[in-house]
Amino acid sequence: MTIWEQNEEKTRLLIRQAGESMLSCHDLVVTGKGRHADFVTQEDKLVQEMLMDGLHRLYPEARFMAEEKENAALTGDPTFIIDPIDGTTNYFRRREASVISVGLAEGKKPVRGWIYNPYRGELFTAAKGQGAFCNGKPVHVSAVPRDNALVYMGTAAYYEELMSLTGLCAQRLLPEIADFRRTGSCALEMCDIARGWAEALFEWRLQPWDICAGVLLVEEAGGRCCDILGEEPDLARPAPLLAANAACFEPLLERLRNIRREWAELREKGQL
Amino acid sequence: MTIWEQNEEKTRLLIRQAGESMLSCHDLVVTGKGRHADFVTQEDKLVQEMLMDGLHRLYPEARFMAEEKENAALTGDPTFIIDPIDGTTNYFRRREASVISVGLAEGKKPVRGWIYNPYRGELFTAAKGQGAFCNGKPVHVSAVPRDNALVYMGTAAYYEELMSLTGLCAQRLLPEIADFRRTGSCALEMCDIARGWAEALFEWRLQPWDICAGVLLVEEAGGRCCDILGEEPDLARPAPLLAANAACFEPLLERLRNIRREWAELREKGQL
Repeated sequence: MTIWEQNEEKTRLLIRQAGESMLSCHDLVVTGKGRHADFVTQEDKLVQEMLMDGLHRLYPEARFMAEEKENAALTGDPTFIIDPIDGTTNYFRRREASVISVGLAEGKKPVRGWIYNPYRGELFTAAKGQGAFCNGKPVHVSAVPRDNALVYMGTAAYYEELMSLTGLCAQRLLPEIADFRRTGSCALEMCDIARGWAEALFEWRLQPWDICAGVLLVEEAGGRCCDILGEEPDLARPAPLLAANAACFEPLLERLRNIRREWAELREKGQL
Repeated sequence: MTIWEQNEEKTRLLIRQAGESMLSCHDLVVTGKGRHADFVTQEDKLVQEMLMDGLHRLYPEARFMAEEKENAALTGDPTFIIDPIDGTTNYFRRREASVISVGLAEGKKPVRGWIYNPYRGELFTAAKGQGAFCNGKPVHVSAVPRDNALVYMGTAAYYEELMSLTGLCAQRLLPEIADFRRTGSCALEMCDIARGWAEALFEWRLQPWDICAGVLLVEEAGGRCCDILGEEPDLARPAPLLAANAACFEPLLERLRNIRREWAELREKGQL
């Protein structure tokens, strides 16, 4: 039994406790992080500290990359990649659509993942090659094809240069799918894809802590993920992401790459 | 005391009972209605029958307009305008984001409204000039200005000719607000605006049953609604809708009208 397996129950308990802290914080102080629509609260920092302290005690050798701290470059060593509160705007607006996302990367790839939704008391877990689970029960992606797909549209809201690309995707994709959805929490949406409540998610720039746990969860639930350019999701730097069930993955990948090409051409012609 | 006030408690009970029926239906049969992404289940029809039967007993003189039936033209007489399940796709995908919407129009304007979310056990109610409530407690729109606004983007997903307009709005508005959200249930989103969880909603075509109860709820919670062209929401036919808190209403109205003008020009030039 590895140290990861030995400490799995304690890790789950720690993450659930951090979720309780999220629910019990009532006087939120919101601070802008200097980019469009990018905010942090004291609770993001507190949850991050709780997680890092607890995980350090359980796994003294592990490294950390997390949203609310300065991060060294990702190495191949075991590294927890943490978003203490994914969906901070939802959190301080009390919209009940935020989750804790903890991924473990090794060799720069996700090998374990935990996403906890404290509002629903749902802990999603995945380990490489061992399947995906919600509160211990297996979850699977849907078999719904692109025509009838519900697709989470990420807006890459911190990056103004990508907004016209997002808008073009909205326009081009909508006739070819059932409809878009958007919660404002990427990790929550990855849980929905893993459990078959939606078919796909795309966004033109996401951070490693947004995706590390979710990518493994979707893949272990039978779905597929890539950086839209065709490569495996990169945990070392910000990158685009497509996550989808097996039926939608290839058709959506092809469309997104074509729309991106069209967007680049329109920009060159000055038509955007 | 009017017949409406006399029967208010019985009306609420009826709507909550219809919500229980939504939760207890496990074998859904989904049928396409012939347009893009437009579906109905047997439960939409059952809930509509329950509501129409019960309301007819309580208010024998009232007329009915409802999503899942052929409707006569709206008159000035008291008319219940009903969406038995707003968010049908969410409903049969078991996404837990669908509501029952019942509005009462008189003189072709909404005068009473009930929106019930059976997953949260929340009944939103409003009567003209008497405020907006959730399970009996007053609710109010937020005071958040446009810069920090969360805006529900309606996709008008049944109407291909409007998709490029929706896409252009996504592109143009995103830098000027905090971010978009989308649940797939217009009436649910109107509840969120009324309670201050989001600031606004726009969509380029909605049906009277999507908006009748919600428009009154948002207005009675301190917000404003119009058809984007500047007129009061029209309950006699499909129309665009902007609903917003007081701070965001005028700035969003001006932007949406300008974007629509730009869209018309781009279409004339063949650039869309």
